[in-house]
Amino acid sequence: MPRVNRPYVGIPSFLRSRIVEDIAGLDAAIAVLGVPFDEGSPFLPGSRLGPRALREHSLRFASGRGYYDPETRREYLVEEMTRGLIADAGDVDVHPANAERTFANITEAVRGIIARGAMPVVLGGDHSITYPIFRAFDEKLHVIHFDAHTDYAPFENDLRHTNSHAFRHIAGMGNTLSLTQVGIRSLRHSPDQVEEVIASGNRIIPMGEFRRLGPAGIAALLPEGSRVYVSIDVDALDMSLVPGCVSAEPNGMSYPELRDSLKAIAERHDIAGFDFVEVNPPLDVGTGVTAYLGALTVIEFLGHICAQPRWAARRLARAA
Amino acid sequence: MPRVNRPYVGIPSFLRSRIVEDIAGLDAAIAVLGVPFDEGSPFLPGSRLGPRALREHSLRFASGRGYYDPETRREYLVEEMTRGLIADAGDVDVHPANAERTFANITEAVRGIIARGAMPVVLGGDHSITYPIFRAFDEKLHVIHFDAHTDYAPFENDLRHTNSHAFRHIAGMGNTLSLTQVGIRSLRHSPDQVEEVIASGNRIIPMGEFRRLGPAGIAALLPEGSRVYVSIDVDALDMSLVPGCVSAEPNGMSYPELRDSLKAIAERHDIAGFDFVEVNPPLDVGTGVTAYLGALTVIEFLGHICAQPRWAARRLARAA
Amino acid sequence: MPRVNRPYVGIPSFLRSRIVEDIAGLDAAIAVLGVPFDEGSPFLPGSRLGPRALREHSLRFASGRGYYDPETRREYLVEEMTRGLIADAGDVDVHPANAERTFANITEAVRGIIARGAMPVVLGGDHSITYPIFRAFDEKLHVIHFDAHTDYAPFENDLRHTNSHAFRHIAGMGNTLSLTQVGIRSLRHSPDQVEEVIASGNRIIPMGEFRRLGPAGIAALLPEGSRVYVSIDVDALDMSLVPGCVSAEPNGMSYPELRDSLKAIAERHDIAGFDFVEVNPPLDVGTGVTAYLGALTVIEFLGHICAQPRWAARRLARAA
Amino acid sequence: MPRVNRPYVGIPSFLRSRIVEDIAGLDAAIAVLGVPFDEGSPFLPGSRLGPRALREHSLRFASGRGYYDPETRREYLVEEMTRGLIADAGDVDVHPANAERTFANITEAVRGIIARGAMPVVLGGDHSITYPIFRAFDEKLHVIHFDAHTDYAPFENDLRHTNSHAFRHIAGMGNTLSLTQVGIRSLRHSPDQVEEVIASGNRIIPMGEFRRLGPAGIAALLPEGSRVYVSIDVDALDMSLVPGCVSAEPNGMSYPELRDSLKAIAERHDIAGFDFVEVNPPLDVGTGVTAYLGALTVIEFLGHICAQPRWAARRLARAA
Amino acid sequence: MPRVNRPYVGIPSFLRSRIVEDIAGLDAAIAVLGVPFDEGSPFLPGSRLGPRALREHSLRFASGRGYYDPETRREYLVEEMTRGLIADAGDVDVHPANAERTFANITEAVRGIIARGAMPVVLGGDHSITYPIFRAFDEKLHVIHFDAHTDYAPFENDLRHTNSHAFRHIAGMGNTLSLTQVGIRSLRHSPDQVEEVIASGNRIIPMGEFRRLGPAGIAALLPEGSRVYVSIDVDALDMSLVPGCVSAEPNGMSYPELRDSLKAIAERHDIAGFDFVEVNPPLDVGTGVTAYLGALTVIEFLGHICAQPRWAARRLARAA
Amino acid sequence: MPRVNRPYVGIPSFLRSRIVEDIAGLDAAIAVLGVPFDEGSPFLPGSRLGPRALREHSLRFASGRGYYDPETRREYLVEEMTRGLIADAGDVDVHPANAERTFANITEAVRGIIARGAMPVVLGGDHSITYPIFRAFDEKLHVIHFDAHTDYAPFENDLRHTNSHAFRHIAGMGNTLSLTQVGIRSLRHSPDQVEEVIASGNRIIPMGEFRRLGPAGIAALLPEGSRVYVSIDVDALDMSLVPGCVSAEPNGMSYPELRDSLKAIAERHDIAGFDFVEVNPPLDVGTGVTAYLGALTVIEFLGHICAQPRWAARRLARAA
Repeated sequence: MPRVNRPYVGIPSFLRSRIVEDIAGLDAAIAVLGVPFDEGSPFLPGSRLGPRALREHSLRFASGRGYYDPETRREYLVEEMTRGLIADAGDVDVHPANAERTFANITEAVRGIIARGAMPVVLGGDHSITYPIFRAFDEKLHVIHFDAHTDYAPFENDLRHTNSHAFRHIAGMGNTLSLTQVGIRSLRHSPDQVEEVIASGNRIIPMGEFRRLGPAGIAALLPEGSRVYVSIDVDALDMSLVPGCVSAEPNGMSYPELRDSLKAIAERHDIAGFDFVEVNPPLDVGTGVTAYLGALTVIEFLGHICAQPRWAARRLARAA
Repeated sequence: MPRVNRPYVGIPSFLRSRIVEDIAGLDAAIAVLGVPFDEGSPFLPGSRLGPRALREHSLRFASGRGYYDPETRREYLVEEMTRGLIADAGDVDVHPANAERTFANITEAVRGIIARGAMPVVLGGDHSITYPIFRAFDEKLHVIHFDAHTDYAPFENDLRHTNSHAFRHIAGMGNTLSLTQVGIRSLRHSPDQVEEVIASGNRIIPMGEFRRLGPAGIAALLPEGSRVYVSIDVDALDMSLVPGCVSAEPNGMSYPELRDSLKAIAERHDIAGFDFVEVNPPLDVGTGVTAYLGALTVIEFLGHICAQPRWAARRLARAA
Repeated sequence: MPRVNRPYVGIPSFLRSRIVEDIAGLDAAIAVLGVPFDEGSPFLPGSRLGPRALREHSLRFASGRGYYDPETRREYLVEEMTRGLIADAGDVDVHPANAERTFANITEAVRGIIARGAMPVVLGGDHSITYPIFRAFDEKLHVIHFDAHTDYAPFENDLRHTNSHAFRHIAGMGNTLSLTQVGIRSLRHSPDQVEEVIASGNRIIPMGEFRRLGPAGIAALLPEGSRVYVSIDVDALDMSLVPGCVSAEPNGMSYPELRDSLKAIAERHDIAGFDFVEVNPPLDVGTGVTAYLGALTVIEFLGHICAQPRWAARRLARAA
Repeated sequence: MPRVNRPYVGIPSFLRSRIVEDIAGLDAAIAVLGVPFDEGSPFLPGSRLGPRALREHSLRFASGRGYYDPETRREYLVEEMTRGLIADAGDVDVHPANAERTFANITEAVRGIIARGAMPVVLGGDHSITYPIFRAFDEKLHVIHFDAHTDYAPFENDLRHTNSHAFRHIAGMGNTLSLTQVGIRSLRHSPDQVEEVIASGNRIIPMGEFRRLGPAGIAALLPEGSRVYVSIDVDALDMSLVPGCVSAEPNGMSYPELRDSLKAIAERHDIAGFDFVEVNPPLDVGTGVTAYLGALTVIEFLGHICAQPRWAARRLARAA
Repeated sequence: MPRVNRPYVGIPSFLRSRIVEDIAGLDAAIAVLGVPFDEGSPFLPGSRLGPRALREHSLRFASGRGYYDPETRREYLVEEMTRGLIADAGDVDVHPANAERTFANITEAVRGIIARGAMPVVLGGDHSITYPIFRAFDEKLHVIHFDAHTDYAPFENDLRHTNSHAFRHIAGMGNTLSLTQVGIRSLRHSPDQVEEVIASGNRIIPMGEFRRLGPAGIAALLPEGSRVYVSIDVDALDMSLVPGCVSAEPNGMSYPELRDSLKAIAERHDIAGFDFVEVNPPLDVGTGVTAYLGALTVIEFLGHICAQPRWAARRLARAA
Repeated sequence: MPRVNRPYVGIPSFLRSRIVEDIAGLDAAIAVLGVPFDEGSPFLPGSRLGPRALREHSLRFASGRGYYDPETRREYLVEEMTRGLIADAGDVDVHPANAERTFANITEAVRGIIARGAMPVVLGGDHSITYPIFRAFDEKLHVIHFDAHTDYAPFENDLRHTNSHAFRHIAGMGNTLSLTQVGIRSLRHSPDQVEEVIASGNRIIPMGEFRRLGPAGIAALLPEGSRVYVSIDVDALDMSLVPGCVSAEPNGMSYPELRDSLKAIAERHDIAGFDFVEVNPPLDVGTGVTAYLGALTVIEFLGHICAQPRWAARRLARAA
């Protein structure tokens, strides 16, 4: 008889997928990797516990079969779950008070995942990690991130590795085809953090424009079929939905707005990998709704990525 | 001089109504009954403290006179409160780790309330309790529930009494005229939990259809003047409003959407009783807003029920 | 090299402005004053820690230069911050269990600020403080407050100093030109608390009318160019945004709705001072989002006040 | 069959005793009275929820029969519980921001209890309430209180009703035969708060002397058979035991030290009444251990009072 | 280079031991098994999260090499950890609201561990689980448990599976050589729960006797070299140490008192297995000290068991 | 009339002392300096908020006059407080994710304080900060620290700046006359972290030896009249007293044990400065007892330092 496996039961891997901590031995289409690093946080730390909480809440979706949307009456991730195409690669090792070394570890792990032919799905941690994740990709990619903040602080005053610097790094990298920042609305940017993004040829989509464009419009900002890396800061969502996010801001996205944008991107483009960051479990409410919403976002984006014909084709190729 | 009776003062009964724990001696039009049972919870327990918290927050409305809506400038529940037509029947006794026995207690208590001519208003506890509540009714009723989940899991693997099974029981009972499930949206259903509901002739209203129908459309799903039992899971409301609900889901109802639907049902139909479930006070935020919103929902639904001509007629008959 | 000054660093004054606790020596255009008083709270106390928490979260905006809105690409408060026009006047002294004496202290402090030519910005505390703040003004003012409740309870049963009485006092004062209450929606008013407001010639704007009027309509309720005192109860905002507010109610304002109304008032009228009340930090969620949103509201309203030509003119006059 | 009545079930009265909110109709040997007042608190408020939490935790002892000590293999309170000699008199009404009026209510309620021949057992609230409780006694009494602080602040600077003033009032009252303060150890006293106590002929027992005297020595400070009023501040206990007490201090009493002192006093003297104060439930840990320990202290002191021959004699007289 | 493996990094198994969820394939000397069951809890639930929290805090000891005591300057568990003799067998599956079925699962899992030649170390969950654990042993054993409560409630009123019944079951079983209950002190026992234990020939050691006997005296209660099953309820420890235990009682054991008793038992007797129960992580303090202390207790008891010559002999035999 | 200045009122500096953030202008005998750094924390971060919380709780002692001990009936710090000899130097600036730079800032600030002739009293933050504090001293000093852990991890695997490394640095520095580590008891040391300390000629005092030596014995470990730097980790205190310390361990010091040791050291030696570290306010209990106990420890140690003849002599010299 199958186990009931209520979410409070068992050792938590993402979606109860196989644990493959030795990336050299990874054999999966999708590798979920935790990066429990929060030393780049500008205010309250705690997102280092993000990967653990996201795994725990992912168990609520771990039916063993994929998931089903009662609105569309359609199933997702069935092949991935029933055939074991997802692996949990555990966590990147963190060297406390040595961000450079931790960043090297991150890059090495992601590089390993890519080398094994899997798509990396990275769970933060704070947003500083997107830089060492992204530099692991050798191919040229468009970058789109959902965020209340540009994370584009200048490299000055001996600061380089905080979560305010990630996209300043990325904007200047050789493998970055373009940078698009969606949901920007915080009043805590210096003008330079916004104006220099624009001046550098990148794109900022504040909330007003986000709503005018709609999901299809967001996806259409890039040429159809682009290879895209997506970074999702949970603070893209409205403050009311993310009590466990320190950098929450009002006037953010509803969950359908974020989900439909991710779905549109998944449908129009070819996703090379993505990360999800900035849930702070020790400061979340007792029910853990922020971590739950984070797990939901990751799983539903993954569902839409894997529902595309290009993904099915690869799945077939892989099986062959 | 009247007491000030701030809500932190006094022993909490619902709306400071009379405490009548011996149901055999009940003499009231409305009986509020607590069911502090959460053994059917699939993840984090704690809703056993729901009745206590709902009573405490109900005191914030306990003016001694009913309540007043500044939008419509109309009063509600004035007769009920000033004439003592509401009684608090205390809590059903719980036999830990013996769900069958607890369920028998629930059914007996509700049966007693009905026998004394009062309308039962039941405060949970988790959603598993709707089954033993509902089976206490001998008359045939339409059932409508507001919920993110169908709670229609199959009876397999030795599971029957969890909060995922309530409506599988109810759908199959002889006194169920119809089953309508409103607000369904969670991605944590197996397909069977939805498809079998529909195949069995019941009705599922996902959020998209809920918004298209509107309150009047929801009420119109049943023949006018139907006798109806209503079950309200607090997770019908949007995640942003219910931090103290473990099963909260995004893209849920706003409070006006839920309230107006309940009001439309109260206006068009004849309510036989209702329950309100799944507030988890130990995991709620410190201000207890989820319990407050629960008390508000119960009180405002009750207000609209008692504002109907059919209720006034009964009140007169009762007084005679 | 400038300090990094992350928000967890340093002794917190509002926006890291100069601390001038001796009001007699105040030399500033704007004086931020804390009133850590919560003895007027009808349910759970704790807003006495509001001023401290609002100062702490204000540090997140303390760039040393003002703030920048990425939606409009415009800067605010630059002159005020770079030229030191804002001072933090510390907190009014509280005499526990002696509300009259505390109220006298409040009035004296605000009177001192006005006498020194500064605009008072007062951080509560509970809403009872608006009465002793307002009576410090000798000039005649229109009063507009954003709130879920009218705070207009009768002076009876030996009650006068609670947060339910503030506007009953103010409505009857000689320097009150008019009283407008915006966002009223709680079902916990007695009818008298609403009907008597209206009967007395004051104006109540429930949420329905608030949405019909829009920000410009709200501002247009007063003759253009009026001198106005504004009081902001954080519960004007929707319950989903203010988990750390004990009196939170559903169906409240979104942040843009409140902000745009305040902006419209700042543009059309001449603000004499304002207060912000009812954040309860010990009961807020761990991330402190309610206090953050409070700091944001205060700062953005201040930004719009100081962006007006009339303010720039005064700044020039002041500098001369 | 008897109810299981687990502590989370049912409307909480102290030890599930009869609720007799109309003191005029009180017919009991012991009356438990709540005083949900915390406006006298010098730092963080919240003890207004003390009576409610103490009642809830008292349910854990509500066997319907008294309690049993496995160390001594002896039962207590059996007569009191089985014959209904304890009544819960509900809570004194609080007039927010009007301490004088609330204090009048307290005195009136306690006077009523005494007039009905019952021993008052009062649950706070903060320690300021001992003054209005004590002044309700017409007979002359010795006063002994267990506390880390003398609560003997001078009446100056418009302060009279805080929890630092209670024993300054009591020391000067005509019905105070003597004042003994046990457990004093906080470094937050002004010298006057201690030296004046001693100079006035009262007795202070710091922790060193408390340990030298032992329980019997403490009881022996008063003439045998004295009529005594006892006030217990939960902060008499060591900080490690009372995480939910704002004024907790290290180097306090162990529970056996406090209990044995109370037992010795009950054995040697004739207790006229007692109070228990300063548990702060909203700030307590999630398990509520401080409220539990408070309920235990009250119940065990009551047990020892009722185990004395003089009490049994009165019980007989009462029954006759 | 070895990983740093700070405790917030990685998927948590107990002491980072190998995960062997299929007990049929277990090859280890010690098997750690979680039982996330709390339906037997008489007051607040939540200990179902105990196994997860104990694993997480065990990582703080996961040096990869065993642990070292700076007081004695001796190492423990070195062989066990470096040679992989400990396995984490994951969690027993829980069937919500079906205690009988869950209990069957527990018994089956423990039976499997014993059959594979490993010593079971079981992490609760509430104390009801000791019954289904213990009945998995075919050999006759002495039972000793450390607890504030006897957990010896009668089988009446349809109650059999709560955490108050475990030792009533065990006392009556054929493989129970003797039952010794150490640390008993709660005033919440009915007399029968204690007197019947004694009358049945079992032994109760209240705290007074516990302190008189000392660790060696406790161990000497059983014939030297006995085969013993040990059950540890975290509430044996003093309330001040276990804020995250719902049933905490004052006047409990210090950590050295409990540890030295366990050590003395390990030295004098032959341990067949043990369990550790009743940590409630969702209600623990934010630092999780109760879960940490639980992990420490388990690890240090294990250390002393494995430091005995009889264990070394078996290790050798096993290796051969 | 003097202000009441309850601790929730006003902008918090340590003991309400003068704020002198520009160390170049410091004119005080004692300078309190915050170091809000927690990037060296091995498990849960949050001690960055330590300085702020310690300042807030210090206000509870801010009588404006010093403090008074009711046990000894003696006053302390009267001269220091009434004559303004203590200054609050604010916080060292933190460069996130750049520990070297932050450490440089720390050293510079402490060096500045020493240069201005003031004794530094440093509030952490995690224990990694003791290294950069100590290296600011040019004179040779004995170092004694109170701690459950040696914090003597090897410099390997790219780790140097964590709170496990502080005393490895200090042990090897030229200005370290001796290193004595008191209270060591955690089982989470590698053997090397202890054995190498001893092998290097330093002294470790585990709890057993600590209790045998007593306060005078601890002080006597150093030659009378030594110049000493003292570092106090809050985890030296017993776990039961420090729920807000992540690294709490059982079997620690009682508050009198720690205080009397500090007092004995202050009496026998000449204190050059001290630090107090590892309170984690966001994870502390709601009442903040750990931060309160921290403030108490700092203040009482300061009181005993300033009560020595050598200090009085310097005070006189300073005034001259």
